[in-house]
Amino acid sequence: MTSDPRELRRVLDGRWADVRAEVRAQLGELRLTPEADLSTEEYRALTTENLRRLAESGRPHQGFDPAYGGGGDVGGVVTAFAALGYGDLSLLVKAGVQWGLFGGAVQVLGTSRHHDKYLRSIMDGDLLGCFAMTETGHGSDVQHLRTTATYDPATQEFEIHTPDVGARKDYIGNAARDGRMAVVFAQLITGGVSHGVHALLVPIRSEDGTALPGVTIGDCGRKAGLNGVDNGRLSFDHVRVPRENLLNHFADVAEDGTYSSPITSASRRFFTMLGTLVRGRISVAGGAGAATQKALALAIRYGATRRQFADPESGEEVVVLDYLVHQRKLLPALATTYALHFAQADLVSEMHDLQSFDAEPGSNVETEAGQRDLETRAAGIKAMATWHATATIQTCREACGGAGYLAENLLPQLKADTDVFTTFEGDNTVLLQLVAKTLLSDYGRRVGKLDVVGKARFAADLMAGSMAERTGLRAVVRRGDLRDRAYQRWLLVEREEHLLAAAARRMRKALAPGADRFAVFNGAQDHLLVAARAHVDRIVLDSFAAAVNRVESPALRGLLEQVRGLYALSVIEGDRAFFVEHGYISRGRAKAVTQAVNTLCGQLRPQARTLVDGFGIPEAWLDCPLLDGERDSHAAPTDPSPSQEEPTDLAAVG
Amino acid sequence: MTSDPRELRRVLDGRWADVRAEVRAQLGELRLTPEADLSTEEYRALTTENLRRLAESGRPHQGFDPAYGGGGDVGGVVTAFAALGYGDLSLLVKAGVQWGLFGGAVQVLGTSRHHDKYLRSIMDGDLLGCFAMTETGHGSDVQHLRTTATYDPATQEFEIHTPDVGARKDYIGNAARDGRMAVVFAQLITGGVSHGVHALLVPIRSEDGTALPGVTIGDCGRKAGLNGVDNGRLSFDHVRVPRENLLNHFADVAEDGTYSSPITSASRRFFTMLGTLVRGRISVAGGAGAATQKALALAIRYGATRRQFADPESGEEVVVLDYLVHQRKLLPALATTYALHFAQADLVSEMHDLQSFDAEPGSNVETEAGQRDLETRAAGIKAMATWHATATIQTCREACGGAGYLAENLLPQLKADTDVFTTFEGDNTVLLQLVAKTLLSDYGRRVGKLDVVGKARFAADLMAGSMAERTGLRAVVRRGDLRDRAYQRWLLVEREEHLLAAAARRMRKALAPGADRFAVFNGAQDHLLVAARAHVDRIVLDSFAAAVNRVESPALRGLLEQVRGLYALSVIEGDRAFFVEHGYISRGRAKAVTQAVNTLCGQLRPQARTLVDGFGIPEAWLDCPLLDGERDSHAAPTDPSPSQEEPTDLAAVG
Repeated sequence: MTSDPRELRRVLDGRWADVRAEVRAQLGELRLTPEADLSTEEYRALTTENLRRLAESGRPHQGFDPAYGGGGDVGGVVTAFAALGYGDLSLLVKAGVQWGLFGGAVQVLGTSRHHDKYLRSIMDGDLLGCFAMTETGHGSDVQHLRTTATYDPATQEFEIHTPDVGARKDYIGNAARDGRMAVVFAQLITGGVSHGVHALLVPIRSEDGTALPGVTIGDCGRKAGLNGVDNGRLSFDHVRVPRENLLNHFADVAEDGTYSSPITSASRRFFTMLGTLVRGRISVAGGAGAATQKALALAIRYGATRRQFADPESGEEVVVLDYLVHQRKLLPALATTYALHFAQADLVSEMHDLQSFDAEPGSNVETEAGQRDLETRAAGIKAMATWHATATIQTCREACGGAGYLAENLLPQLKADTDVFTTFEGDNTVLLQLVAKTLLSDYGRRVGKLDVVGKARFAADLMAGSMAERTGLRAVVRRGDLRDRAYQRWLLVEREEHLLAAAARRMRKALAPGADRFAVFNGAQDHLLVAARAHVDRIVLDSFAAAVNRVESPALRGLLEQVRGLYALSVIEGDRAFFVEHGYISRGRAKAVTQAVNTLCGQLRPQARTLVDGFGIPEAWLDCPLLDGERDSHAAPTDPSPSQEEPTDLAAVG
Repeated sequence: MTSDPRELRRVLDGRWADVRAEVRAQLGELRLTPEADLSTEEYRALTTENLRRLAESGRPHQGFDPAYGGGGDVGGVVTAFAALGYGDLSLLVKAGVQWGLFGGAVQVLGTSRHHDKYLRSIMDGDLLGCFAMTETGHGSDVQHLRTTATYDPATQEFEIHTPDVGARKDYIGNAARDGRMAVVFAQLITGGVSHGVHALLVPIRSEDGTALPGVTIGDCGRKAGLNGVDNGRLSFDHVRVPRENLLNHFADVAEDGTYSSPITSASRRFFTMLGTLVRGRISVAGGAGAATQKALALAIRYGATRRQFADPESGEEVVVLDYLVHQRKLLPALATTYALHFAQADLVSEMHDLQSFDAEPGSNVETEAGQRDLETRAAGIKAMATWHATATIQTCREACGGAGYLAENLLPQLKADTDVFTTFEGDNTVLLQLVAKTLLSDYGRRVGKLDVVGKARFAADLMAGSMAERTGLRAVVRRGDLRDRAYQRWLLVEREEHLLAAAARRMRKALAPGADRFAVFNGAQDHLLVAARAHVDRIVLDSFAAAVNRVESPALRGLLEQVRGLYALSVIEGDRAFFVEHGYISRGRAKAVTQAVNTLCGQLRPQARTLVDGFGIPEAWLDCPLLDGERDSHAAPTDPSPSQEEPTDLAAVG
């Protein structure tokens, strides 16, 4: 039985289905990215033109404070932003810079004096701006940026200065061509004391586009992709801005230079500011998801019609997606894409509910814990989703052979444009370390809260874990059906807990007197990353399972449960060395995992087309010569291939 | 102790050291590929200009028959070709099309009538040509191409025809802009009988560049990379060429249309013809190697000076290559690059010794067996080397963060240009299936040659293997030091043999009466690919070990032995699930593998710069802003970092 892709799309569309429908319609109004040979300048001009069209649509306004003409729909605007990934990723990133990063910083780090003055023109796209955080010398460790903002009470101005080339703002979107103003992150110094990194509004260009005095603007030039975005470099030579240009939601400087902030710790203050900008990270994960879906739609539709090599029995050429190795390339990647889609939807919902426009920062513990959880999830999902995008788009390109290498078939641009997602808005490796750090401190807190009996039991468990690891024996090896949802989850939970407990044991060594803390941390770094990945795999699986549970139609629920199973089993297969080494599954069972993945691939093969159609990518955005064969083969009597017509028992697995 | 990179370079340069030295000097004479924003047409024109410079250098002549003014140095020319990968990959591919594929086909498939007429002008670059094999509908299964060459005895001509759009020649280098002639692969029909695919010389453009009557030329347009190469499409509408245009080394058609060939089987004849073209595949593997080396040189040199995040003890910022996770990204990849370099060198040597200019085709069994071995090795190494290139260049890009995404820093072009290597000159997945097929039939032959006692013992071994697999118990688990060379090899050999025996057992099912052969083959496809990979890993390790043995300096041998060990252990680590599942190593031992890789990474860290300098990539070809920090940091008192100065005991491992 084949499910209706429209029914599937309703499930995938979820809470912001109306926004998605609107964006699908809107995409048609933009001038598409060319497969043609645009120069960098031409492509930048086209992207700016499309950005203005977006502004006219009123869609970007939806993410801002209703008090200033915004729609207050943070989740909707992030959803819409990600859906641009079906179309043109340069536009997505340029829009993200303008409204997400620049506008977002003014909104959340600024106060009414900034909102009154700038929000309207930012929303309308009349004031184009930059988010100038990264420096040439500091990309990941942004707490140690070296640009300075020194307050001068005599003139009531801040002096923005770039002390050396390493402190130059680098890779800044909107800087090379269009930006008129920048939110500049700098070490705030007043009365000779540094209070850490703060954000200030700094005009960089005049109306006519020339750099303002003291501002040097460079161009990052051609990039691997995203060439519609004008990334540039900014240096400041004692540039002065009024005191009021400090975005003072979290801290302020009085006329006489007195510094004040409700958050006393400089480090905590900085990370609180950063935390409010989590929207950018979430949006990148969403954009990566859309691009991955598009690549899979292309490769799977091509694979379902392309034929190569004859079946020795029938003499007829075989549809390449009927080959097991082709299924293995594409279908587990498709299942993971589904899983990440639902995890992303949950993340956006959580963010939306948390970032209402009336909450005060850090005002209650519940919000703080929620914010912390949101940041951790966002970091983890961003890392996994963007690496998944890079790997999957690459696989899709290869699965289309030479045709996949031609620009006209869209895959090259998807690949080139998404590549930087793994290292911008937080380098993935650094983000996973962040996740691990939070998991470890939560773990420490859990242990700390235990009573005496609980602590003893906990210590015994730890010891037993350590013993089991040394002996390879585990007291309780749970037996279960590999296709069983609860058993799959048990494996993922056990792995996460195991890795975390072991990491905690290793970290404790750093506390020993005379320990070389750097050596301990460094030696455990790969372990921590593995633990963080295990955590993200598990929360992604939970989101998927919850989404399946919400589906009412039994046939559709059955189909999605198979996809969920394929995701879970392919995660388990990918790390089966862990499960066997630590005695969670037996050697024989581990080999059965591969067989179970193969079986599920075969079972889902006839539904592959339906599953990609469910993404609801507008047909015009998939139109390319690669899919010409589809039209031809639909006319031919030999298609659909026998296996596509074969009925599948949706309940067979899971 | 730090080794001298020049000494290392002599080892890496090997048999064709003089050719490498010459190419290094020659690269400076070419106009480099621009980081600038060239249009497709500008880049094509530049590449053609560089191609002519190459021709003037006389270097391409070295690969051709001395009887026609060539140098007869096949190995040298392939080595030189690959070294172009340090410079511009478009030029490498364009040169490969002109002299390797087009010229090579005329040389090995043609006879004196073609050599006399064309070889000189091909060598000189006066006659630019295409290698027109791939069709839109047939890329991997080239035995079933659909272009026809029908002989007409009345006019003593062949009529070349494209029956439909699927039979159009596609992705053909030199076709869109420069080619004047093409070697066209077509089904040869004479007297109403088809004799399979043969190659014919077909003029496609007049001197002034216009398409000849009946020839339709299309342009593949912009691609993900290699935009200096003019890939295009060729269709033929009953185009007539003289009988003499058949490249008739392996088969001929007499004036009256009588077909003759020393090789009676049409299939064997076709694969013999293809086999002579193995040089292209070997050259791609070499080019991938050069590009990978360049990417690693950039990322490792950057990583050895870039600092990020402070050490909690010293407060000093840490050089990123001192972080374990950064080492794990780059150093095992570097070790694999070394391993593939030596395997490639052996492959080129083998080819050179086999393809002398006086051997007759298929004239003796030894040559035939040698050719077969060469083709299998070439297929396997091409697949592994190009996938390794794609993965490693991606990792290097990410390891350089945002800077790695800028065109000025060279990594984007390396990545985009090499991407298609995994699917051209043979799709990697199809190539590994080819390797597996040969391994299986060799295996069958080994079994077939055994006497009665041998067969019984063999059957018992198989049974025992199967038992061990079911029970997870293995009679002899060899114990050894993970750092021991012999033990590492034992593991790789056992894996290869095990996977092959198991594959043979599965394949036997296809022989059962009534078996669904397609289903059996298809179900075992992933297993076969794993077996092929295991084989290639082992032969690559053997090449590396042999290369280490040839080194005379103890210090250098010690260093290379560490690198070899890192390669071996990272292969074992990557497939440790296999080794544990099948009882080759214990659970505890498997975890020790990861620790051993970490330890080796730390030990090789201080030698990382030396190891990339050993590739001898001309400094001018690495010059980019990414490495500006090197100059700065060399001036700074804090560099070299303490760990770089630390002496390493080269004998500590291995």
